[in-house]
Amino acid sequence: MRFGFQVNATDGHARVGVLNTAHGQIATPAFMPVATQGSVKAIAPDDLKALGATMLLSNTYHLMLRPGIEIVSKMGGIQDFMSWPGPVLTDSGGFQTFSLSRLKKLSEEGVTFRSHVDGSEHFLSPEISLEYQALLGADIAMVLDECPAYGLEEAQVHESMDRTHRWALRCKEAHRQEGQALFAVVQGGVSPNLRLESASTLMSMDFDGYAVGGLSVGEPKAGMYQMTSLMGGTLPHDKPRYLMGVGSPEDLVECVGRGMDVFDCALPTRVARNGGLFTYRGRVNVDSVPFREQDKPVEESCDCYTCQNFSAAYLHHLFKAKELLAYRLASIHNLRFVIRLMEEARHAIAEGTFDAFSERFLSGYRIADENVRRSQKEKWLRKR
Amino acid sequence: MRFGFQVNATDGHARVGVLNTAHGQIATPAFMPVATQGSVKAIAPDDLKALGATMLLSNTYHLMLRPGIEIVSKMGGIQDFMSWPGPVLTDSGGFQTFSLSRLKKLSEEGVTFRSHVDGSEHFLSPEISLEYQALLGADIAMVLDECPAYGLEEAQVHESMDRTHRWALRCKEAHRQEGQALFAVVQGGVSPNLRLESASTLMSMDFDGYAVGGLSVGEPKAGMYQMTSLMGGTLPHDKPRYLMGVGSPEDLVECVGRGMDVFDCALPTRVARNGGLFTYRGRVNVDSVPFREQDKPVEESCDCYTCQNFSAAYLHHLFKAKELLAYRLASIHNLRFVIRLMEEARHAIAEGTFDAFSERFLSGYRIADENVRRSQKEKWLRKR
Repeated sequence: MRFGFQVNATDGHARVGVLNTAHGQIATPAFMPVATQGSVKAIAPDDLKALGATMLLSNTYHLMLRPGIEIVSKMGGIQDFMSWPGPVLTDSGGFQTFSLSRLKKLSEEGVTFRSHVDGSEHFLSPEISLEYQALLGADIAMVLDECPAYGLEEAQVHESMDRTHRWALRCKEAHRQEGQALFAVVQGGVSPNLRLESASTLMSMDFDGYAVGGLSVGEPKAGMYQMTSLMGGTLPHDKPRYLMGVGSPEDLVECVGRGMDVFDCALPTRVARNGGLFTYRGRVNVDSVPFREQDKPVEESCDCYTCQNFSAAYLHHLFKAKELLAYRLASIHNLRFVIRLMEEARHAIAEGTFDAFSERFLSGYRIADENVRRSQKEKWLRKR
Repeated sequence: MRFGFQVNATDGHARVGVLNTAHGQIATPAFMPVATQGSVKAIAPDDLKALGATMLLSNTYHLMLRPGIEIVSKMGGIQDFMSWPGPVLTDSGGFQTFSLSRLKKLSEEGVTFRSHVDGSEHFLSPEISLEYQALLGADIAMVLDECPAYGLEEAQVHESMDRTHRWALRCKEAHRQEGQALFAVVQGGVSPNLRLESASTLMSMDFDGYAVGGLSVGEPKAGMYQMTSLMGGTLPHDKPRYLMGVGSPEDLVECVGRGMDVFDCALPTRVARNGGLFTYRGRVNVDSVPFREQDKPVEESCDCYTCQNFSAAYLHHLFKAKELLAYRLASIHNLRFVIRLMEEARHAIAEGTFDAFSERFLSGYRIADENVRRSQKEKWLRKR
């Protein structure tokens, strides 16, 4: 199937659409579970199918270091390797070389870095990243970009953005993979001017889709929402818009309302493994005292395998006893929660009731959230 | 359904039978996966159903310490708590108070011990253990027994065995739970005389079934097989025989051939979590070099979810990357392997070809096993 995107309905800035890929159709807005190393943590393909996942994200950076691109390629590509029959988007490796590896040298040609796994030295250029993403068999490849840390001077952000644009052009010119879409990444930090310049520069190169990168990296929430709104009003109407690294339930709803179509984030599964579960009342810690004897599931209205079969008391026990099943059941629930949220959003947009849906969800969701966020942050800090 | 047992076919000492319990029928010989803390490690009830498990074992000792018997009871009993619709056998807590806890005091009345979880002090008597097993809702309860360590003087083993018999009688007299079966535990170490005395004493009390305890605790393999043969020739033909704590593929086949009907063991899931996978060629370490690029599943003839969907190379990668999915996929495979082995054994016994089946399996299985066992033992020792 040829890659394509079609907007079928809008409601304010929010859009309902369909993305066509070589491995199937995706209804948007869509949340992509993150299979960083070729596995959504604690979750198998049968779980993903059952909870309604349609597209996964996987990381060129992690796969090139382990098991190696050539092994994944020999096994028939990333879909066959992890036995996932649906579409996969691969990130380019750009973000991780800056955030995870020990960066050795950044030049116009590319980036030299040391593996966070074994310290070995590696090199990525726009061309090499695309070659790897072709070998992985990604349905959607991302251009190699540079993701500046939050808090840099505007001049530094500008310089980095310009390199991202030059690399994007090299990717566009090097891209030959039949049936594979190529998305650009808008950068520019929290500067509206830089973001507009980045969007317009990349739009002039005509990519299959546009990602918004470099957000959710430490900037205040208001800045993230402001940049997302700006992009929702700027990026082409007929191309998919992918907000990278965003995926808390409240941010998903907020950013669907700002015109974003596709999302990925490790947060739902990461907080799940720490006992943090999404409910329509907000995030709760299932390993806390109130759940010790709760015969009901964590979220009564939830249709996931976990809530359909297990009490909150059982989940509480599994976390206390450090049983491995805890991580799978909690991850299934949180992924189903955000995927169902996207289903509900699509329904509301199609019916022209997205504002009411968004307000209802956000007002209910936030009641409990702040206390839980604080206690989870403390738990995380204690662990370090 | 009333508890009952029926032998439908024999082949040498091996037997094919059916066990009726309040939660369903079990074809024997049967292997019970171990849900020590109310969860088969890394495995959910949907997995257990798919891999053909029929009865689980759970531990009174662990559940009384966490989450507490009263919580499991409030949640509707152990089956509802873990969302497992089938039968459950509970161990009495006897073995663990000796092997896991800090033992404080052993008296005629019972055993006082400190929890391995939080150091709190607890007391178990034959009557209390049965009360707990009734509250848990076990389909089969076990008498509280004393399991002497391997290597004690015969006089000490004798003394311990006599107490086990007195406790068994108290259990028999205290047992009132409608629909719940009660099994006794034959003790007596590796002494044929003590074993025969233990069996005959307990048989005179007329239990619903007889377990063989105190084996696979460090004695030489020959001693274990010898005691099992002796029991296979001694215990009543019309009652189920449960060999406790035995569950390597080779021991299962050997002991089915010696007339045992039911088995439990944490070994299949424990070695799985360390990358040790059962194949018809023997146990292999999937995280070792030969599997790095193996496109085929670990065991081509296997019908489990893991082998039907994933290459050995993918499992190898998951173990190397320490992905949680590794533990589930490996555990599914090993449990399916031993459960299928019991299915094959039942088929062979019914056809009168058990000896040929046993010989074929054991000669193939042992080729690779010794080297792997050694390397896994080294790995385990390094971890301590």
